[in-house]
Amino acid sequence: MTEGRFLSLEGGEGAGKSTQARALVSALAARGVHAIVTREPGGSEGAEAIRGLLMQGEATRWSAHSEALLFAAARADHVEKVIRPAIGAGHWVICDRYVDSTRAYQGAAGGVDDAAILALHAFGARGLLPDRTYYLALPPSEGAARAAKRDGGGDRFAMRGEDFHAAVARAFDGFAAAEPARYRRIDATLPAEAVTRAIVNDLADWLA
Amino acid sequence: MTEGRFLSLEGGEGAGKSTQARALVSALAARGVHAIVTREPGGSEGAEAIRGLLMQGEATRWSAHSEALLFAAARADHVEKVIRPAIGAGHWVICDRYVDSTRAYQGAAGGVDDAAILALHAFGARGLLPDRTYYLALPPSEGAARAAKRDGGGDRFAMRGEDFHAAVARAFDGFAAAEPARYRRIDATLPAEAVTRAIVNDLADWLA
Repeated sequence: MTEGRFLSLEGGEGAGKSTQARALVSALAARGVHAIVTREPGGSEGAEAIRGLLMQGEATRWSAHSEALLFAAARADHVEKVIRPAIGAGHWVICDRYVDSTRAYQGAAGGVDDAAILALHAFGARGLLPDRTYYLALPPSEGAARAAKRDGGGDRFAMRGEDFHAAVARAFDGFAAAEPARYRRIDATLPAEAVTRAIVNDLADWLA
Repeated sequence: MTEGRFLSLEGGEGAGKSTQARALVSALAARGVHAIVTREPGGSEGAEAIRGLLMQGEATRWSAHSEALLFAAARADHVEKVIRPAIGAGHWVICDRYVDSTRAYQGAAGGVDDAAILALHAFGARGLLPDRTYYLALPPSEGAARAAKRDGGGDRFAMRGEDFHAAVARAFDGFAAAEPARYRRIDATLPAEAVTRAIVNDLADWLA
């Protein structure tokens, strides 16, 4: 049995996280590694129900504090029901957004204290962090243009203004700088195939 | 303008909280005080949506930790959108269950640390506590019999076993003993009218 690994993909809207998650599953399968793709908010039955509350409705439907609690509840369920069992069974888990998205969106851009978000994460998901996080870095304006092309109006977060998305991007830059052992910053303006190649190259130590 | 007050009604299933909430509104109105009745989980549009996730489905749908986070999210929304504005406008608020229910059900009976629940409450609802809490004390067996008569099978919490409900009752007994300034223990085996009378008598200092 292979050793289970937990990877997260982070970044703003339109950075290519979902595309890369799918591409990574194929690239890993070609190397004999079984990976599952999951996403946040959601990824388990209960968490997907919470996702519906988080993603729909007016941009101002929830305060940033209520949002942070809902994300923590969804993540607790997702970790308990899906992520930990998969890792425990020796699979790799590729998660499209994880706790760093809460830190960036509700924290840095929403005004909630980072230490408080990490405390909620310690309580709900027992503090589980990815083995490695790939940050798909893209200028927010380009991400917004890509996301608008893809899904029209977008969800409650996509519809926030430029300042909000700039704050999100700055937050991810900061996380990558602060946690170099876990974080890898990948240039997401590159073609998708080049991004996948960069990630797989970076995983070489675990694939040997 | 009168000074707004915040009262909560607590206790196990079938203790008569909803009945007393309605009776109190009439009794207060007769004394010139405008009170609104609200309930948890729920009480605001967002919190009622979360209530649906919490009350429906299998008893084991959520872990006690996920539940505690969902209750905290719902309560944060309820406090921000309904309770604080009403108190600020000089009304009285009568809340059918509040944070002590989370402390009793997810905490004492569900195994979640009480300090952690209070930390979630400090984060989400900024720690707002009732001015006074009326604990409608009833032997759990009698409460269960009343609740079964009223609503058949009951919700995810009503369907838990005897030990669970005994732990809930012990928790409320403990809260009442630990916080005598906020808590009033009322014998809920008395007829409903006598319970209402006991509460109104206790409120005399604020109604003078």
